[in-house]
Formats: sequence, C-alpha cells, structure tokens
Amino acid sequence: MRLAVIGLGRMGANISRRLMRGGHEVVAFDRDAAKVAELAADGAVGAASLEEAVAKLEPPRIFWVMLPAGAPTEETVAALSGLAETGDVVIDGGNSFFKDDIRRHRECAERGVSYVDVGTSGGVWGLERGYCLMIGGDKAAVHLLDPIFNTLAPGYGTIARNANRTGSDDRAERGYIHAGPAGAGHFVKMVHNGIEYGLMQAYAEGFDVLKGRSSEALPEDERFTLNLPDIAEVWRRGSVISSWLLDLCALELARDNHLERFSGRVADSGEGRWTIDAAMEEAVPINVLSAALFARYRSRTDDRFGDRLLSAMRFGFGGHVEMPQ
Amino acid sequence: MRLAVIGLGRMGANISRRLMRGGHEVVAFDRDAAKVAELAADGAVGAASLEEAVAKLEPPRIFWVMLPAGAPTEETVAALSGLAETGDVVIDGGNSFFKDDIRRHRECAERGVSYVDVGTSGGVWGLERGYCLMIGGDKAAVHLLDPIFNTLAPGYGTIARNANRTGSDDRAERGYIHAGPAGAGHFVKMVHNGIEYGLMQAYAEGFDVLKGRSSEALPEDERFTLNLPDIAEVWRRGSVISSWLLDLCALELARDNHLERFSGRVADSGEGRWTIDAAMEEAVPINVLSAALFARYRSRTDDRFGDRLLSAMRFGFGGHVEMPQ
Amino acid sequence: MRLAVIGLGRMGANISRRLMRGGHEVVAFDRDAAKVAELAADGAVGAASLEEAVAKLEPPRIFWVMLPAGAPTEETVAALSGLAETGDVVIDGGNSFFKDDIRRHRECAERGVSYVDVGTSGGVWGLERGYCLMIGGDKAAVHLLDPIFNTLAPGYGTIARNANRTGSDDRAERGYIHAGPAGAGHFVKMVHNGIEYGLMQAYAEGFDVLKGRSSEALPEDERFTLNLPDIAEVWRRGSVISSWLLDLCALELARDNHLERFSGRVADSGEGRWTIDAAMEEAVPINVLSAALFARYRSRTDDRFGDRLLSAMRFGFGGHVEMPQ
Amino acid sequence: MRLAVIGLGRMGANISRRLMRGGHEVVAFDRDAAKVAELAADGAVGAASLEEAVAKLEPPRIFWVMLPAGAPTEETVAALSGLAETGDVVIDGGNSFFKDDIRRHRECAERGVSYVDVGTSGGVWGLERGYCLMIGGDKAAVHLLDPIFNTLAPGYGTIARNANRTGSDDRAERGYIHAGPAGAGHFVKMVHNGIEYGLMQAYAEGFDVLKGRSSEALPEDERFTLNLPDIAEVWRRGSVISSWLLDLCALELARDNHLERFSGRVADSGEGRWTIDAAMEEAVPINVLSAALFARYRSRTDDRFGDRLLSAMRFGFGGHVEMPQ
Repeated sequence: MRLAVIGLGRMGANISRRLMRGGHEVVAFDRDAAKVAELAADGAVGAASLEEAVAKLEPPRIFWVMLPAGAPTEETVAALSGLAETGDVVIDGGNSFFKDDIRRHRECAERGVSYVDVGTSGGVWGLERGYCLMIGGDKAAVHLLDPIFNTLAPGYGTIARNANRTGSDDRAERGYIHAGPAGAGHFVKMVHNGIEYGLMQAYAEGFDVLKGRSSEALPEDERFTLNLPDIAEVWRRGSVISSWLLDLCALELARDNHLERFSGRVADSGEGRWTIDAAMEEAVPINVLSAALFARYRSRTDDRFGDRLLSAMRFGFGGHVEMPQ
Repeated sequence: MRLAVIGLGRMGANISRRLMRGGHEVVAFDRDAAKVAELAADGAVGAASLEEAVAKLEPPRIFWVMLPAGAPTEETVAALSGLAETGDVVIDGGNSFFKDDIRRHRECAERGVSYVDVGTSGGVWGLERGYCLMIGGDKAAVHLLDPIFNTLAPGYGTIARNANRTGSDDRAERGYIHAGPAGAGHFVKMVHNGIEYGLMQAYAEGFDVLKGRSSEALPEDERFTLNLPDIAEVWRRGSVISSWLLDLCALELARDNHLERFSGRVADSGEGRWTIDAAMEEAVPINVLSAALFARYRSRTDDRFGDRLLSAMRFGFGGHVEMPQ
Repeated sequence: MRLAVIGLGRMGANISRRLMRGGHEVVAFDRDAAKVAELAADGAVGAASLEEAVAKLEPPRIFWVMLPAGAPTEETVAALSGLAETGDVVIDGGNSFFKDDIRRHRECAERGVSYVDVGTSGGVWGLERGYCLMIGGDKAAVHLLDPIFNTLAPGYGTIARNANRTGSDDRAERGYIHAGPAGAGHFVKMVHNGIEYGLMQAYAEGFDVLKGRSSEALPEDERFTLNLPDIAEVWRRGSVISSWLLDLCALELARDNHLERFSGRVADSGEGRWTIDAAMEEAVPINVLSAALFARYRSRTDDRFGDRLLSAMRFGFGGHVEMPQ
Repeated sequence: MRLAVIGLGRMGANISRRLMRGGHEVVAFDRDAAKVAELAADGAVGAASLEEAVAKLEPPRIFWVMLPAGAPTEETVAALSGLAETGDVVIDGGNSFFKDDIRRHRECAERGVSYVDVGTSGGVWGLERGYCLMIGGDKAAVHLLDPIFNTLAPGYGTIARNANRTGSDDRAERGYIHAGPAGAGHFVKMVHNGIEYGLMQAYAEGFDVLKGRSSEALPEDERFTLNLPDIAEVWRRGSVISSWLLDLCALELARDNHLERFSGRVADSGEGRWTIDAAMEEAVPINVLSAALFARYRSRTDDRFGDRLLSAMRFGFGGHVEMPQ
C-alpha cells in the first residue's frame, strides 16, 4: 500500500523502513528536511509539507502520524483532518492519551475521516524484530489497514505457539490486535507500559538487594559479593523470571557491572501516570504499578522536604539529631 | 518504692527524675560516673557498679534497665540475673525485640527472678507529660510494680474521658496497661512505633505535595506558594488530622519553614523492621507501614544501583539516554 | 452578618447553627422543604427557592453553598452566578476539585461576582468544636467574610499555643487560613484528606498486626490475645501517636472490640484520588498516601481477577493448585 | 556420575530423570516406597532407607536432598551428615533459608563433609527445559559436581547469545553459576523468587486494569470490553514486556478468559518474606517486592479488622455509615 508517515524520529523512520522492506510505498514528511532527505535516500518519496504529502497520495489516503504525544500530535491530526477527504484515514501511532483518541475520533468522524489509534511497542529493536501493535478504531478502517499492520508486526517468528488457542483470528499470534473502538489501542498500550514500569522496578529492586549484600554492615559470613552479570545471564536460561527486559539487563551488566555510565535519574512518560489514573477511575488497587512510578520520581531528587520533616519530628519527640555535618 | 535505674541516658535520667518527684527512691547507675553524679545531685543514691546497686536495695529488689536494645541490654540483664535473688524483678524499659523478652523471661524464671518488659513512649517530653507504658510479664510482678507505673504514667490529665468505657480497670486511662505475658509489652510498643512511622510518613508526603505545588512546571493558575507553618498550625484546630506529631511539625515549621537545619537523612530503629517481620509472620498486609520504613532507607542514599539499572533498560529498549552530564 | 446557606445536609445545617449561635443571620435553603422547616425552627429565615434566598439578602449578598462536589455544586454555583450582582460573593464550602474552583472563580469574576473556596474539616463534631477552614480566593472577598470564618472556626480553644510563632496574623491559631488564590483552599483541604487517609491506614494496619498476634499458626509463647480497647486508650496518653483519629478508634473499640457493626467496605471520596493526581503532576512520590487509597479499593472486593491470574501463573510454572474447594 | 537423590516429589523425581537421561546413575530414596518404585521403574537404583542409599554409593558420596525447606530438610541433612564420611558431599537443592545453609555448611565442615546449596528454578517444565541453578559452597565441592550441574542446566539452548560477554567462564550461559560461599546459592534463588513475585503482581495489576475497563460506572465511550487472551498473546511478540510468565498467562487465558477454575487465594513460600528481611538488613527500599507479597496476604482474607477500623473512624468523624446490609 501507499501511505504517508508524518514524523521521522527514530520510531517513525524505522517504521517507514520496515514498511518499505515489506513492499509498501512511503511518502515521508518531517519538519526537519534532513530527515526527509535521509529517508528518501532509503527509498521513500519525500514531501516538503503536509500538503505535499497529501498530494502524493491517492484516496483513500492513509496518514501514519508518529509524533510526541500532546501538542505535536494534536496539531498535526487537526491539520490533516482539515486536509483530508471523506474516506481518508489518520493513524496516531504515538503514545497519546486514550481520551484524546476518543475525542479526535469523534472530531474526525464529523468530517468523514477515519481515525485509528495504534499503540506501538518494540522500541529501537522494532525494525528487525517487528512491532507489537495494539489498535483501536472502526472495524472497516482497521480492516483496510491490515496489510500495513501485517508488515509491521513480528509475525509468528520463533515464539512457541500457544497450544490452547483455538478460533480463526490469528492476528494476535502474528503480533497485532484490534483491541476495540477508538482509544482502545492506546488504552492497551498504556497498560502495557504500566506493567513495563512494574516489571522494571521488580528487577531493579532485586538487583539492589543482590548488590546490597556486600555491605560491610552485615555479619561477615552473611555477606556476599555477587557477580551480577553472571546472575542476570543465568536467569535468562530455564528460570521463571526470564524475559526480554532481563535480556537487556544482562546485556548492559555484561558491558559494565557497575552501570557507571547511567545516571539513575529515571524519566517517565505519560503512560505510567495515566495507568494509575485509569485504575483510580475503576477503583482497582495497583500498589506495584504506582510504587514503580514513584520510585522514578524519587530517583530524580537528592533531597525531599518530606524527609526533612521526618527529621524535624524525630527531633521534636526524641531529641534525635539529624542535621547536616 | 525503692528501685535501681541502670542506664542514665536521656530516657533513664528523666524516668529517674519523674520517679523521685513522685516520692520513690532511686539508686542510679551508669557506666559513665559523671551521669551518676549528675543524678545524685538531683537526689538519687549513686552506685558505682551493678554490685553496689544491688547492695543498696532491699529484697525484693527492683532493677529498671534503660539501655539501648541489643548487646547493652542483653549483657546487663544477664549480669543482673546472676546477681539477683529469688523474688527480685528485672525490668527492661528499653526498646528490646519482644522475642528476646520471651527468652529472657524464661531464663530469669529459671533462677526465680521475675522479668518484666515495659515499652515506654513519651520521648523527651515524658518527664513533664508522663510516659505511656505498655507492660508484659507475670501478673504478680506487674502488680508489685504498680506504684512505679502509676507515677511514671501521665494519669488522667486533661485528655477527654472516653464515654464508652466501662469496667473497673482504669489503668489504660491513667496511661499504662498490662498487655499480656512476657514480650507483650514490647510487642505493643513495637506496633506503636510501626504506626508512628506510618503517621509520620503520611504527614511528610502531604507536606511534600503542598511544597511541590509551587513548581514552575505547573500551569500558572494551578501553582500555589503555600504557607506551610500556617497550614500546620490551622490543622491543629478542629481538623480530622490533628495529633501530637502535627503539633511537633507546627513547632518546627514555625521556627523555619524550610527546615534547613535538618538533613532529611532519616534513621530507623529496630521497631519499624520488627513490625514488618511480625506482620509477615501473621500474613497481615501492611503496605503503609512498610512504605514508611522504605522511605527512610531511600532518604539515606543519593543514588541507587537499581535506578541505574532502570536507566540501562530504558537505554536498551528505547535508546533513552540517561547519563550524567 | 446575614448570609444564605444553600444545602442543609448534616454539614450545612450544623454550619448554619454555629453561625446563628455566633450572632449571624442565616437565610436557609434546601431542595428538601422539611430541612428548611427544621432549620427555620432553629431560628433561620427559610427560603423556598434560590431566588427567594437572593431576595432575602442585601448587597453585597453572601451565599455559602454546602452541597456534594460535582454536579450539585456546579449547577448551584452557575445558577447563583446568574442571580447575583456585582459585589456579591459565592462561597463553595464543599469538597470541590480545586481546578473546578479556578474555573468557577474566573467565570464568576467575568460577572463581577466573587468566588471563594473553603475547605471545611470537622465533620459531625464541628458544631461544638468548630470547623477548621482553609480558604482560597481574592483578598478583598476573604476579608469581607472574616466575621463568618471567625465564628465557624474553633478559636484558640484549649490547644497549647505554639511557642515558636511570631508575627501578627493569628488566624491560623484561631482555626482558619487564607491559603492563597482561587482553588488554594480546596487544594489544602484535599491534601488534608490525603493525609487523613494515610493516618487512618497506619492505625488500621497497626491494629491488624495486634489482632493477628492471636493466630494459632504462631508458636504458643509468641502468641498474644491483646486487649485492643485498652491499647487504643493507653496510646491516647503520653504516647507519640496520640491524635484525634486515635480518640475515635478508642471510642468505637470501647463500644465493641470486634467492631462487628462495621462492614469494612470502605468508601473514598474524590480527595484521596485528587491528591495522588496532584502529586503526579508535581512528580512527588507518595507511596503511603496511595497505598491508603488502594487499601480502600481492595476492601470493597472479595475477589480480584488479578489474584486469579497469580494462581494461574503459579499453576503454570509450578503445578501449584489454588482452586476453589 | 553416581549420586543419591533424597526426596522424590515432583522436583526430586524430575531431577532424577533428567540426570539419568544425561547418563548419570541415581540412587533414589523417599519415605514413600511407591515413589521409589516408580523411579526404579524409570531406571533408578531404589533405596529403602538413607542407610541403604549410603551403602549404594562409593566415596566421595554425593547426596542431593530435595525436600521441603524447614524440618524435613534440616533432619535429613543432619542424618546424612552423621552417615557421611570425610569427603562426601551433601547438596540441598530445595528452597532453604540461606542462613540455615551457612550454619549447616559449618556443621558439616566440622565432620569433613562438604555442603553445597543449590537454588533450583524451572518448576514443572525443568525436566524438558532444564533447570536454572544457583550454587553456593566451597570451590572444590562445586567443581566436583560440575558434570551433574551441566546435565541439569538448560545449556545454551535457543536463547540468543549475549554479545557483550567476554571471558572464559561460560557456565552462566549454560544455565548455572557458582554464586559464592555457603548460602550464596539460596540467597540468589531467594532474590529470584522475590523478583518473581514482583513481576507476577505487575502483570496481575495490569490485567486487573484491563478487566476493570468494562465497568458500567465508567462513561460509555471510555468503557471497553477487552479480549484478555488476545492481549496476552499479542504482548508475547515484539513487545517490551514479553516474558516466560507472560507466556504462562497467555496459555491459561486462552483456556478460560475468566480463569474461573482458580480461587485467587494465593499462597506464598518463604522466599518472598526472606527477600524482604534481607532487604531490611541491607536498608534497601523494596516497595514493589513487598507490595507483591502483601497482595497475596490480602487475597487470602475476605474481611480485615483494619478495614472495619477504617469504617469505624469514618463513622466517628463524619457519621458515614458503612454497616452490613
């Protein structure tokens, strides 16, 4: 199929490349002309403006928007919705908040334009491994886009088939699903990222406990200096906690077992927060997912006012002195 | 009554003073002769050794041990248990682990000596306010010591009487209870401290949220620079969250609303940890009490290995760069 | 002063009564005529409609709206804003979301009407104890209303004065503060309630650990059957964790130490959730406050799907059988 | 090699079978003669007593103890330590507490017997996949046992090699490591299980949020009825959160998307608790790992006293009625 990809950052560029490798034609646009030129060198049709991208497509036109969530996506979808004609399809492949999708879908529908939200997981490895796609939107539009999703997704690959699956829809086994109406794609992706935070923090805490075992405050025979790279590696084989995230831990620990090139000031994007919001709307308790998010907040501050208040109370009732030296 | 107080740190010295003000006679001993002299100047009978303290009492001898938990208390109780005679009473008024009490009570009983564990709350204010006492041990020994407990406890004071209480044992209303057999006193005190950690952290987090509202990252009309001393003060009056700990917050915030003289590196003593252990033995979920303890651990480190591992994973799957500048 | 109170539920009725006892004149309105009649019997001027309430006031008219947050408050404020004239003041004394206040203040200002948000703590005890008031809005309007706030607040009462306070604004010591611009009052009240959840859960967990100590799964000498009413009572006196919430625990435990008349399915209102949202906007970690909210969610379900998924995984990797009998 | 396997439960029997398939000779003993007979039918040399097992080995004798942690393991190791001769090796392949290993290693060493602790992950799938082994003990003993470990471990398998690994010790890549001195094997296995709890709970909470999205309390356009089996399946391919535990989720969800055959009353073994203890000894904050354990405790109770105390406080300050209907 022929489609435009709007936004040629790491994700947008790689998605374009995987689509072209799969036989699709990509009209590529980015505000940064250098990125357009780079992708044109790889075989894409470059476009110097949204209007030019529109002009280089045939109806029904397909636009894959791959921009940061928030204003960049919002403005581009609005612009495209103005340029598009009845029957055209706008895909938001970024990390938008699912309630924005619901609204945009409604606004696009009023103009006869389809809006499809696609949560995309796979990161920098997706070009080779394929992308896991979680799709929300109207059935007809999702059906129209099937060849695109099929190309982007990993396919069966070498993952063991699930012996308990029956039925004829094997899209999930090929790496993409139509999760539900508008917003459902990004909702599922949001929860995916919420889980991701929890998994990551579970490993982080476990390795912290391993690392902490060498503390000289411990009795000598209960003190171990453990080989973290070997532990990460061995857990990849036959253990209950093997995972792709653990593979990544093993990769980095093998490079430097002190991880000294990392700051440990850990960013978070909207999905972690939105997952907690969604859970609160549903009255679902999520102590692990929230603790994982809060650990990131804490990692970014050296000194909290609340901790000083604890010291102040301890001084107040017990005369305990916790003052800077 | 006449009793020996062993250990004249802040708590031991003030307990001695409150006992003497209540008409009791205190034989005072500490390894530090200067502390003995200081208390003798306040009216106590000084003793230069445990043996001398024993010699200056009449049977049944009463020993109030007020030393740090662990080795200091363990060794002193063992020594006293050797020096004491049938019918004598050893009181551990410190913050011992309740299972140590159970063992010591058994060991003392084998020599005919009573062992009573007393959890003591009140801190530096106890001399004037009185101490809240949680007592474990045999009924006869606790009965014998009643005049001492009655003096140390706050009494009815100005606290509103509980209209729903009936029955004749009003010791709880006067500020002390016989909680149960050996270990029960320190068990109740341990849980008291576990709760204390939770309460303190609830205030700490709330004030952190108030403080964080002035962040320039927030939209201007949703940003407030709040007067924390006034807020602490107003909450003391008529609000649901008024408490003695809040009184202490208000006191310190009124002194310096930035709390700059405090380091915010918050220590913990054994009780917080033991409360979590006890809960795990009982399979009781305690997310708040554990989070309160862990916040203190986190306050004492600038940089966690686990956080760097998070950065490493984020780099691994997304190419996110979180490296020191 | 003369003012209208709109909404005569428990809070609105008691506020009216405390105002009248303080010498103010209350025009009382509620959709439920019986409540109006009841308050008129206590001395209020009854009104059968918002319009009649307006008519019974002199400019500048003062309206204290005391309704559930959300639609009831929203609609009433909108209606009053339409009926009011330049210089009139609308007070929202309920538990509104602070961002709604910011918007309403702007909308009212466009019509020349002042909008003041007042977070009110004190519950059913406020009529006698007074209410703790956290106020947001423009300085002039807050100044105009001072006699009202002064009457509603507890005043100095018997609370010990804070020796470290200096300066001339003693409103906080009399139980009310002008926290900041529109929304600041409800923001402070929201955090107050967030803290309240944390404090409550700290006590709940502590008492759960005390209760769980009688479990027959524990070794006999480490098992205690503790007197919870006495423990709550003794902690009220001289202990570090004494508080008004603990007073309430002691009251109820003295009535029934099994608390059998309570379901333990614990509701939550918006403030707990909003506090977490606010903290996430500020990137402030709040493990205790969130755990307290989630415990309430969990208390309301007997069976979670996620728990069944845990059982399913345990069966999957270990053959562990966790199936209903 | 020839060795005795003591304890022929699921794990012990499968380990024996994998060893025999790898060319080793197994002397099999269990208190339950039927299990011995079953394994003898598979090619093992049956033994009717520990003494007989000893007699059927040649020095240095190797005993692999595969029994529940606690008394069964303790008693068997003690008995073997009495029967063994200088140079013999006792392996504890169960889930013992690492401090017990440290003590047993010392006690065995006093008799000239080597003690090796082996944490074994792999569950019911280990017979085919191989077992991930984490080994603690003296270098010479671990070296002697290498052929056994090599057979039990998965080997390189189809897992992608770690491009960053250098050096000559490739045991970790073949699925086993010598983690350190006595206790280090079970310590690493303990943390492995702690992480396992965290990972499982992250998935459980995420799926709970997905499930909860169909709640009728939500606005209609923000409500989704999601296909959980498809979501689990799609996440196995190309997503950041793919893992073996997710594979198991997908297997069970494909069987029954309501998981109705599971009770959701989730057991825990010692490792989760010990991990928290170890972290507390090291002052390492582990909010996620502890929340995962506490969720299991909560899953096993319908009604908590602490929750009723919350209801009681809410009634006390606000007159909120939370009583059984």
